[in-house]
Amino acid sequence: MTSSPYKPVLTAQQLADFFVEAFPGQNSGAVQFVRVDPGVVELRQTPDETMLRPGGIVSGPTQMAIADRAAYAVILAHIGIVPMAVTSNLNMSFLRALPAKPFFAGAQLIKLGRRLATVDVRIWSDDPAILAAQSTVTYAIPAET
Amino acid sequence: MTSSPYKPVLTAQQLADFFVEAFPGQNSGAVQFVRVDPGVVELRQTPDETMLRPGGIVSGPTQMAIADRAAYAVILAHIGIVPMAVTSNLNMSFLRALPAKPFFAGAQLIKLGRRLATVDVRIWSDDPAILAAQSTVTYAIPAET
Amino acid sequence: MTSSPYKPVLTAQQLADFFVEAFPGQNSGAVQFVRVDPGVVELRQTPDETMLRPGGIVSGPTQMAIADRAAYAVILAHIGIVPMAVTSNLNMSFLRALPAKPFFAGAQLIKLGRRLATVDVRIWSDDPAILAAQSTVTYAIPAET
Amino acid sequence: MTSSPYKPVLTAQQLADFFVEAFPGQNSGAVQFVRVDPGVVELRQTPDETMLRPGGIVSGPTQMAIADRAAYAVILAHIGIVPMAVTSNLNMSFLRALPAKPFFAGAQLIKLGRRLATVDVRIWSDDPAILAAQSTVTYAIPAET
Repeated sequence: MTSSPYKPVLTAQQLADFFVEAFPGQNSGAVQFVRVDPGVVELRQTPDETMLRPGGIVSGPTQMAIADRAAYAVILAHIGIVPMAVTSNLNMSFLRALPAKPFFAGAQLIKLGRRLATVDVRIWSDDPAILAAQSTVTYAIPAET
Repeated sequence: MTSSPYKPVLTAQQLADFFVEAFPGQNSGAVQFVRVDPGVVELRQTPDETMLRPGGIVSGPTQMAIADRAAYAVILAHIGIVPMAVTSNLNMSFLRALPAKPFFAGAQLIKLGRRLATVDVRIWSDDPAILAAQSTVTYAIPAET
Repeated sequence: MTSSPYKPVLTAQQLADFFVEAFPGQNSGAVQFVRVDPGVVELRQTPDETMLRPGGIVSGPTQMAIADRAAYAVILAHIGIVPMAVTSNLNMSFLRALPAKPFFAGAQLIKLGRRLATVDVRIWSDDPAILAAQSTVTYAIPAET
Repeated sequence: MTSSPYKPVLTAQQLADFFVEAFPGQNSGAVQFVRVDPGVVELRQTPDETMLRPGGIVSGPTQMAIADRAAYAVILAHIGIVPMAVTSNLNMSFLRALPAKPFFAGAQLIKLGRRLATVDVRIWSDDPAILAAQSTVTYAIPAET
């Protein structure tokens, strides 16, 4: 692995505070920022019952929501608070059932451009080599004013 | 447009009942089945405050959740209640901001195979020619036992 | 179906001429522009032996190449010759084997923005209701200078 | 990085021989297998003039073709020669222009199931931390007979 060309400008606490404020209706306490490193943010989510689907496993939309959140977080971590960054594309491959217990989402910047940023997000339960899902997420970053 | 080679086997009411039962923790009343036709299901969702993002618009995860739901619904509408059908891939392109008011998701079967089904889902607010998002969703259908 | 909000500014012949000139190394004669309508371009490709894969069917890369070409064509058809428009994302779902004979790619603009354009491309052999593949392609359009 | 749970069963030479035989019409000599390791295959491609697009850069279809090829190769490397494995989905994000000189495609297995295999492919020119493209590719593996 080569070292990341990126440097975070926000801490995990600053990111957590932003999400609580930006998404007031959501139970943001269920998501913890466990790691903010160059080019990388890692989240840990404790699913509640509304996040499950038939089979008693974590639903696909729950996984897509955390992937989108993790991508947003890793971008803001490196450019600062730019709330109007918006998802332009998200692709997710679901690989294995994700059991109903806390799970992780690791987001890695693969390109941070001025207008578009692309992030690789991986979701796992216990072992980051045994993935439940992989997602590639592109955000559009608004032009500075 | 050519006519659909598919025929639904469930009614809108049967689909609605299944979703209420299968996702007990969710406010399924916010989603209505407005159309079930050969190869097609159309949903109407009234967003609540937890579904918004900075800018006061409907969040990406909310749109992905309804796209996944609409794809699941159009597949079950044509093969009957098979709860363990699971998403294997979802790709979504976000095209325009979706204002905070009721919106539509139209799902069209583009291939219903024995093991995989692929669905085109489009999301709009007022005019189906002015799309907020397009999604292609693939479900894996479990082998019969 | 609602009518398209888009109007082409180039003819099939002008598009064909552009592609011959822009891709001098390729056998552009194997691709014909069979339709240019509001929001839509349709191509017909005759595959040669280098485009086949084990099983004697048209290869995936051949289908992705024509999808990318069709998307580029429908965008240029509506904004004029802007060679430096570049693909920013392509997603393709392969649905059925595509036999080794002439096939069609139909591209429909689903959003033509100033900076990004998104196109739905479908590939079929004989019947446009029996698809071999579906692709969603996003192009980045360079800022005017 | 955690170690790969996968073990190759073919060598680079065996893979190269298979591709020459399976794709007789193509100039397979332009693609070299530079690495076959647990869970990973790396290819090096020397583009010719037919692989360029306006701007004198490597075309998108050329990058998609090598990504598809690299995904096929890393799967066969781990399950043996199963020619009828076929692509079921390919998603590619184009991140930067790829100059007209030899470039690399690194494919990593992210899930090798019995029926579906998913591969992360990255393309770069000089530095694997400066990506030109990222692709997630899913192959369907035929049932054993």
